Amino acid sequence: MKKIKIGIIGLGRLGMEHAKNLAFKIPNAELIAVCAIEEEIVNKIKNDWGIKYGYTKFEEMVKNTELEAVAIISPSPLHVRHIKLAYQNNLHVYVEKPLGINLAECEEAEKIVESNEKLVFSLGFMRRYDPSYAYAKELIDNGHIGEPFMVKATSIDPEHTIDGAIKFAASSGGLFLDIAVHDIDLIRWFLNDPKVSKIHAIGGSYVHQEFSKYGDGDNVASLIEFKNNKMAILHSGRNAAHGYHVETEIIGSKGSIRIGNVPQKNLVEILDNNGVIKKCSQSFQERFSEAYRLEMQDFIDCIQNKSKKPRSSVYDGTETTKIAFAATEAFQKSEIIKM
Amino acid sequence: MKKIKIGIIGLGRLGMEHAKNLAFKIPNAELIAVCAIEEEIVNKIKNDWGIKYGYTKFEEMVKNTELEAVAIISPSPLHVRHIKLAYQNNLHVYVEKPLGINLAECEEAEKIVESNEKLVFSLGFMRRYDPSYAYAKELIDNGHIGEPFMVKATSIDPEHTIDGAIKFAASSGGLFLDIAVHDIDLIRWFLNDPKVSKIHAIGGSYVHQEFSKYGDGDNVASLIEFKNNKMAILHSGRNAAHGYHVETEIIGSKGSIRIGNVPQKNLVEILDNNGVIKKCSQSFQERFSEAYRLEMQDFIDCIQNKSKKPRSSVYDGTETTKIAFAATEAFQKSEIIKM
Amino acid sequence: MKKIKIGIIGLGRLGMEHAKNLAFKIPNAELIAVCAIEEEIVNKIKNDWGIKYGYTKFEEMVKNTELEAVAIISPSPLHVRHIKLAYQNNLHVYVEKPLGINLAECEEAEKIVESNEKLVFSLGFMRRYDPSYAYAKELIDNGHIGEPFMVKATSIDPEHTIDGAIKFAASSGGLFLDIAVHDIDLIRWFLNDPKVSKIHAIGGSYVHQEFSKYGDGDNVASLIEFKNNKMAILHSGRNAAHGYHVETEIIGSKGSIRIGNVPQKNLVEILDNNGVIKKCSQSFQERFSEAYRLEMQDFIDCIQNKSKKPRSSVYDGTETTKIAFAATEAFQKSEIIKM
Amino acid sequence: MKKIKIGIIGLGRLGMEHAKNLAFKIPNAELIAVCAIEEEIVNKIKNDWGIKYGYTKFEEMVKNTELEAVAIISPSPLHVRHIKLAYQNNLHVYVEKPLGINLAECEEAEKIVESNEKLVFSLGFMRRYDPSYAYAKELIDNGHIGEPFMVKATSIDPEHTIDGAIKFAASSGGLFLDIAVHDIDLIRWFLNDPKVSKIHAIGGSYVHQEFSKYGDGDNVASLIEFKNNKMAILHSGRNAAHGYHVETEIIGSKGSIRIGNVPQKNLVEILDNNGVIKKCSQSFQERFSEAYRLEMQDFIDCIQNKSKKPRSSVYDGTETTKIAFAATEAFQKSEIIKM
Repeated sequence: MKKIKIGIIGLGRLGMEHAKNLAFKIPNAELIAVCAIEEEIVNKIKNDWGIKYGYTKFEEMVKNTELEAVAIISPSPLHVRHIKLAYQNNLHVYVEKPLGINLAECEEAEKIVESNEKLVFSLGFMRRYDPSYAYAKELIDNGHIGEPFMVKATSIDPEHTIDGAIKFAASSGGLFLDIAVHDIDLIRWFLNDPKVSKIHAIGGSYVHQEFSKYGDGDNVASLIEFKNNKMAILHSGRNAAHGYHVETEIIGSKGSIRIGNVPQKNLVEILDNNGVIKKCSQSFQERFSEAYRLEMQDFIDCIQNKSKKPRSSVYDGTETTKIAFAATEAFQKSEIIKM
Repeated sequence: MKKIKIGIIGLGRLGMEHAKNLAFKIPNAELIAVCAIEEEIVNKIKNDWGIKYGYTKFEEMVKNTELEAVAIISPSPLHVRHIKLAYQNNLHVYVEKPLGINLAECEEAEKIVESNEKLVFSLGFMRRYDPSYAYAKELIDNGHIGEPFMVKATSIDPEHTIDGAIKFAASSGGLFLDIAVHDIDLIRWFLNDPKVSKIHAIGGSYVHQEFSKYGDGDNVASLIEFKNNKMAILHSGRNAAHGYHVETEIIGSKGSIRIGNVPQKNLVEILDNNGVIKKCSQSFQERFSEAYRLEMQDFIDCIQNKSKKPRSSVYDGTETTKIAFAATEAFQKSEIIKM
Repeated sequence: MKKIKIGIIGLGRLGMEHAKNLAFKIPNAELIAVCAIEEEIVNKIKNDWGIKYGYTKFEEMVKNTELEAVAIISPSPLHVRHIKLAYQNNLHVYVEKPLGINLAECEEAEKIVESNEKLVFSLGFMRRYDPSYAYAKELIDNGHIGEPFMVKATSIDPEHTIDGAIKFAASSGGLFLDIAVHDIDLIRWFLNDPKVSKIHAIGGSYVHQEFSKYGDGDNVASLIEFKNNKMAILHSGRNAAHGYHVETEIIGSKGSIRIGNVPQKNLVEILDNNGVIKKCSQSFQERFSEAYRLEMQDFIDCIQNKSKKPRSSVYDGTETTKIAFAATEAFQKSEIIKM
Repeated sequence: MKKIKIGIIGLGRLGMEHAKNLAFKIPNAELIAVCAIEEEIVNKIKNDWGIKYGYTKFEEMVKNTELEAVAIISPSPLHVRHIKLAYQNNLHVYVEKPLGINLAECEEAEKIVESNEKLVFSLGFMRRYDPSYAYAKELIDNGHIGEPFMVKATSIDPEHTIDGAIKFAASSGGLFLDIAVHDIDLIRWFLNDPKVSKIHAIGGSYVHQEFSKYGDGDNVASLIEFKNNKMAILHSGRNAAHGYHVETEIIGSKGSIRIGNVPQKNLVEILDNNGVIKKCSQSFQERFSEAYRLEMQDFIDCIQNKSKKPRSSVYDGTETTKIAFAATEAFQKSEIIKM
């Protein structure tokens, strides 16, 4: 089996998840290079896993001519710069969301990607690869619920990670950019990429006041109207007591489909003096570990099989970012934003 | 609307439930007489509810010529005697389960009932009137699961009523006669009244040792084989932490139906730091209050409409008692009992 | 037991439900008078049920001095006029929602009610009496989910009643006034009556174009912002394939509560070649029959027990109407409406 | 990272699952040899996956001195012979269930395994590694349900695989040996390895008569009594319309735990004119793919970490086989079998 030689930049929490997948769980990939600014970590991974090359500078890694592809899990403000470097060295690119930190960056990324259509470009909206979401999409595409016209999407981080969220509040970009982008991506996917017409959003810092000083909230909601008149409701929050809650409902002319209505951890049900209980997923890693693996597997498969395309394009990145910015603006100004 | 004039004997916990239904919830019934050994209670109900007649002796109540029917909720050892008195006075009879406390009594009851086929005789297997069980029966009778060949039936009383159960242990007749009779009735109903061929039963006093000295257990299980080779599994217990658990599964050639798999109290779901929780019913009154009302309504309707028959007959009472006794014997002897 | 003598006006589908409850299911009420414009129906009910008085004019019924109370289930445009007549004759009043068909009417009703505080006035927001909603309210009032700050409320009528909805479309007032008022009432109840600050609403006629010509839709959604900054999301629709879908979620600082997430018919679960299936309620009568009975029982109890108050006041009627009109305006103008 | 060099025998459906796990999903394993009687398959795998060695005879593979371990997925009658060959060549052994095809074989296997305690021996009861079952075990070991005293275990193969089951009926050993062994293993695991005292079993060929001629059924049930008086109920079948149904309930003094009560495929819920639907797993591969991976990962980890032991021992194999034979005998003779 021919293996795609790939390098990864970024070995933080999510970077490690991707690195492990590339090193151990994707048969047709060979992780030959790892890159992070912390030399110690690079050396540790290199030695422990028997990786051929280690780097502390992405500029150097991309020059390694053995490489065919890179996975970019660097800090968000570096994404577009790293995409550019990869394209300059003729490397296929997987990049974590967000595509860029503003619209200008996203549009720059579009141009870079358009400059070489032979390279595979995959954007990390991993939910499209989650088995439950993929199953729902298939049912919908097969007409099971008729014409879908509305999506309700909820993402609430667990309360037990609130300290990290507060610490990260100043730079997170707010709930719409930080969390709701994944929901916006799903909404667009399930409704077949309609253009947004108007957005309104409200919310507040109901439990954790700390978010208000950044023009953010701990719970926000948004109404999205599309140019074809379809609609969506978003709710994003930071303090689910029961765990990591990601729930989506697609409503069609003949039925509805829900995913994650009860974000259950597994097939266990407990019957005790509290009642009948289902325990829930406690983190995005727990909920989406399979999705992360499958999207990376798909990226590698797309490199080997030219007729296959990743589920998210660079344009999905731009469009989703645009909507998230509009929602943020609607929330902060308490207005309807037209797009 | 013509109202059936009825009297009731027994004003304990369950008697009061029936009395209230007759007095207030069944439009075509008029509760004109109440009977209990405690004169004080009789007088109180008579005055509070405006009931015409009060008695402390059933022998006297049945002589009241205004009466058309009686509901017998007296202590189990008196059932057959009271049925006889009612029939001697030409009264329609509703009697709580059990029909009798041994087979001889049941057979005597059969003869009494056979002596006057014009009288309606209804036996209190109320589960047949529960909306969920009735809905399941209808689906099965319509062929939704093909030919039913197996039933799994579980009834577990809540742990919070254990003190009463222990107090009552000496006279309860044991789990099979006290609790499982309702399951045995359902099994026969769902499988269309097959005759039992063999029964085996095991179990023990796992949590509350008190039951063992009466040849009883706090959890018992039984395998029932019918002459047509269909089968059933029984499990009865006394200590469900989550509440009053009555669960039944009917397995057919084309599908299965479950009733009460999660014995949920209502349509509420709680999401808190324990997970996603459904609270459960806490007593047979809570779970089956509608069934009690509907079976009594049906009894009255059957009196008014000759072509209508109650769902349980006197023969169901005998057969169910037989099976419960056989299961008890199997458990106590640790043998297979042939019938 | 003293019985409250009551008359009812309106013997349509919902009127009959109330009439039956009053006649047969509420021990301390005596339905002594029925009124409807169709003399035939009045006579039939009078005879069949043995009701003392029959009327075709409300003006005449209220003059019956035996009466202590009336239940008004007349057409919506007559509600306030009938409340006035009842108050002029010193009668306790239960009135179906809506209180009035515009704000002026609601305010007139407030004045009538304020004119005699000794009379019990109960407004038909029956969901507050549904056992599941009442259980949820109790949990919330006991602090189980901390401080509630958000409600998501969905009401979707079943597709199989769409013909009636289309026929009624011109006069229904639209989804917000026709259906969402019940959700608005629940939102206010669960959030402890906050005042609305702003409303936005969107939607369309996605499946049944007929609604669009009346400025209505078959699915609409609204974001509601309260003056204390709490929030709510509304979704109302007309075409649920699976049945009558009423679902509510209350989100608090320490947890959430959902009611009717799966609007299941009963405790039956079917396992067949479609999967594991729960059948759903198919009409508001099926879903809320117990709520209708309990709210009428409560009305009668409040008459007998002066210290007891109905769960909905005349002011709840006005406020809910205001919000429903604002939502309708927001939807029709595609604007944010400030209140 | 040091990798354990392993070979595999058996490349059928389940063998391929294990081979793929070893080749691609277990970082610290290196699949260096594959063996099957079909040379074509061996060559294909060898080439496609870049495996170093290919064999058609297990006797030859075990002589490869690079090998440290073998995975034995050969036909059941060869298991013990292959275990012996592996031990003679000082190889760690993973063997699929069943350990042997009769008790004599199991006891021979015990002796082989006892002959070299330095070798890791892992028996393929993969359910112990399923995340849901492992989670349940942990809850139980932590005392969450008090003292467990009863297990109800159900395994029903999907109706859509019935043709294969019928074809295989003569050699399958019957439902208890073919399917219920996994449940018996779980029962013993959850109840902490009690010895069986008595077994009774009933059942029949209710839907597919073909099984009866082999002394087998399409649905069988068993009551198991342990020497410490704990108990278990088994139900095994072949024709679940909804899919692959494996459900287990462990009942303890303070609560119960269920696994797979609804054997749902994923987190999707469909709301259509059938109701609210959960689709189910359709095969053991779908349900237990993660369990297969985790048990093989654990086998490799045990080889590298001497203090770690596989969850199933050779003695579990013997004991489970004994119980399955006794259940089969009880079913065929319609007797209670004492052990």
